[in-house]
Amino acid sequence: MPSAPTFLAIAEGKFGVITAKTAAVAIRYVPERVVGVLDSTSSARTVQEVLGYGGAIPIVRSFAAGLALGPEAILIGIAPPGGRLPDEWRAWIEEALDRRLEVWSGLHTFLSDDPALAARARERGARIFDLRKPPADLPVSTGKARHVDAHVCLAVGTDCNSGKMTAMWELVRGVEARGLRTRFVATGQTGILLAGWGIAIDAVVADFIGGASERLVLEGARDADVVLVEGQGSLIHPAYSGVTLGQLHGTCPASMILCHQASRRLIGEYHGASAWVPIPPLPRMVRLYEEAAALVHPSRVIGIALNTYDLAESRARDAVRRAADETGLPVTDPVRFDRAPLVDALAAAARRGAPPPA
Amino acid sequence: MPSAPTFLAIAEGKFGVITAKTAAVAIRYVPERVVGVLDSTSSARTVQEVLGYGGAIPIVRSFAAGLALGPEAILIGIAPPGGRLPDEWRAWIEEALDRRLEVWSGLHTFLSDDPALAARARERGARIFDLRKPPADLPVSTGKARHVDAHVCLAVGTDCNSGKMTAMWELVRGVEARGLRTRFVATGQTGILLAGWGIAIDAVVADFIGGASERLVLEGARDADVVLVEGQGSLIHPAYSGVTLGQLHGTCPASMILCHQASRRLIGEYHGASAWVPIPPLPRMVRLYEEAAALVHPSRVIGIALNTYDLAESRARDAVRRAADETGLPVTDPVRFDRAPLVDALAAAARRGAPPPA
Repeated sequence: MPSAPTFLAIAEGKFGVITAKTAAVAIRYVPERVVGVLDSTSSARTVQEVLGYGGAIPIVRSFAAGLALGPEAILIGIAPPGGRLPDEWRAWIEEALDRRLEVWSGLHTFLSDDPALAARARERGARIFDLRKPPADLPVSTGKARHVDAHVCLAVGTDCNSGKMTAMWELVRGVEARGLRTRFVATGQTGILLAGWGIAIDAVVADFIGGASERLVLEGARDADVVLVEGQGSLIHPAYSGVTLGQLHGTCPASMILCHQASRRLIGEYHGASAWVPIPPLPRMVRLYEEAAALVHPSRVIGIALNTYDLAESRARDAVRRAADETGLPVTDPVRFDRAPLVDALAAAARRGAPPPA
Repeated sequence: MPSAPTFLAIAEGKFGVITAKTAAVAIRYVPERVVGVLDSTSSARTVQEVLGYGGAIPIVRSFAAGLALGPEAILIGIAPPGGRLPDEWRAWIEEALDRRLEVWSGLHTFLSDDPALAARARERGARIFDLRKPPADLPVSTGKARHVDAHVCLAVGTDCNSGKMTAMWELVRGVEARGLRTRFVATGQTGILLAGWGIAIDAVVADFIGGASERLVLEGARDADVVLVEGQGSLIHPAYSGVTLGQLHGTCPASMILCHQASRRLIGEYHGASAWVPIPPLPRMVRLYEEAAALVHPSRVIGIALNTYDLAESRARDAVRRAADETGLPVTDPVRFDRAPLVDALAAAARRGAPPPA
């Protein structure tokens, strides 16, 4: 299933770091695969002007101009909560299929379940790849994940959108450079986009959250010394805590890295109106995750990945120092600063081996 | 959607308390609606001989003999984990639809998604009701459930199959007798079968566990003083803990009743092979649920429903006393003994009002 086409990212009316997260992360991690972004409402010429990174990748005003850039696939680059396919995009998707471009989508509504689009794809021999569409044959988890030889580390978070995928992706090369065969396990659409495989844990039927997590660990642990699993949600998120606990218990990680956006005070405050649950201090979050894991399999938080993208550098460095003082753990912003504290912690944990079973 | 037809319960090859849970619970709670049970492999003549209750309801050896009993619906009475429709049952279902009987099913594979069966039902004007099929339009939860005026109590458990549905169903009439308008909220197939409405929480897409829970509370709280919500799974169940925490945070209960099978030592030990997580002492389970709830909305465990069906009476009474001593909470087996301790606790909690928001 690994596949790595070049993309025209469709972010119509919404191009931005948060509003078009899938596109923005693709541009950050695989810019060489993004030929352009479609947003007819943008006044910017390049993605750099909007995101602050991505260089000269052009923003185009029409689908035709995007096709002229020669993509191998179109990427539906928005992921609204519970999102649906905007009607006006259907014509673009049909045209892409007619030209035998692949259509990659992170929407909750699966394009491959749309009878007209599915039939068109079949006729034209074009592929629709729904990043969030789970396998049809998921098992109920059985606890097998706790027996793998590889060191399994799960990214956990104080909230959604706190940098869990990014932290794990950034750490892969660092851990590999220590001579450990390292595998990234994707559990959300963006990670699946980057890695070319995975299961969107929050899109599976609730009974199979643990089973999907277990299957990913078993698959990721083959021929790997270290498995870095992208986490989802947060134990304290009113809407998504179930996904988080189910993933934690299905994954049976030997260690965890806690991810936190340093400036955030309330769960989901980036969404505005409905934010009402305060994020507790980091030491309490560490304890919460270790206690929740231990209900099924013991695990320790071995480091903290701080997301400081919205802070000035001096405040970001203060936040890192404060988190380290409060928790006594290795802390860094693995995107912005030296990744070594977390790479060291992971390599040491992997070499020590898993903690003894309960 | 409330609907209460009479049933022929199909439990082919599997009729028993655990193996055909849906049928067995229907016979326990609505025996007047069960005209017979089909199990060609059973040597028993009445359900009483197999279940120890249910009286003279006949067990028949053929589908034709079952139809002769004049049911208004057939009920697929087995619910295997991740279960599929046995091929041999298809002919029976087709015949039922041809005769315009309703077909009620608790299977994971939705009969109404089977194109041939769906078309047949349409043609004949017969109804297929998949108890586990969630609504198509579920929202992400927003915390609204914490603002309802009714007193919301959630049954939580040390494990699956610990008597959560049974406890809540038993308590409804008792609380109503105290002059409080009381509503049972079903979240699993059996409860939906009894109540005629509800959502199978473990069958929804993981992102919507909280949203489905919230919708049920809002619906249940209309014109009710007390809402008794059937809980699912357990916080310490390796495979289903995600469903449990998601439901807890979506429901925002003011109080909880902890359900436990007194004789059980390991999570899922009724399944045999894969049981490996020990059930902690009850006081610790109480703390776990209160701490987990408080992450989003404060809630207290106000009583314990002990399931003692497999214990001799003196041992059952010992277990009740011990649980009360250990936890300091009202304890009873609401099926076997006086329900008053839990009814009193609920009525008192409802009259006190919800605890102040965090």
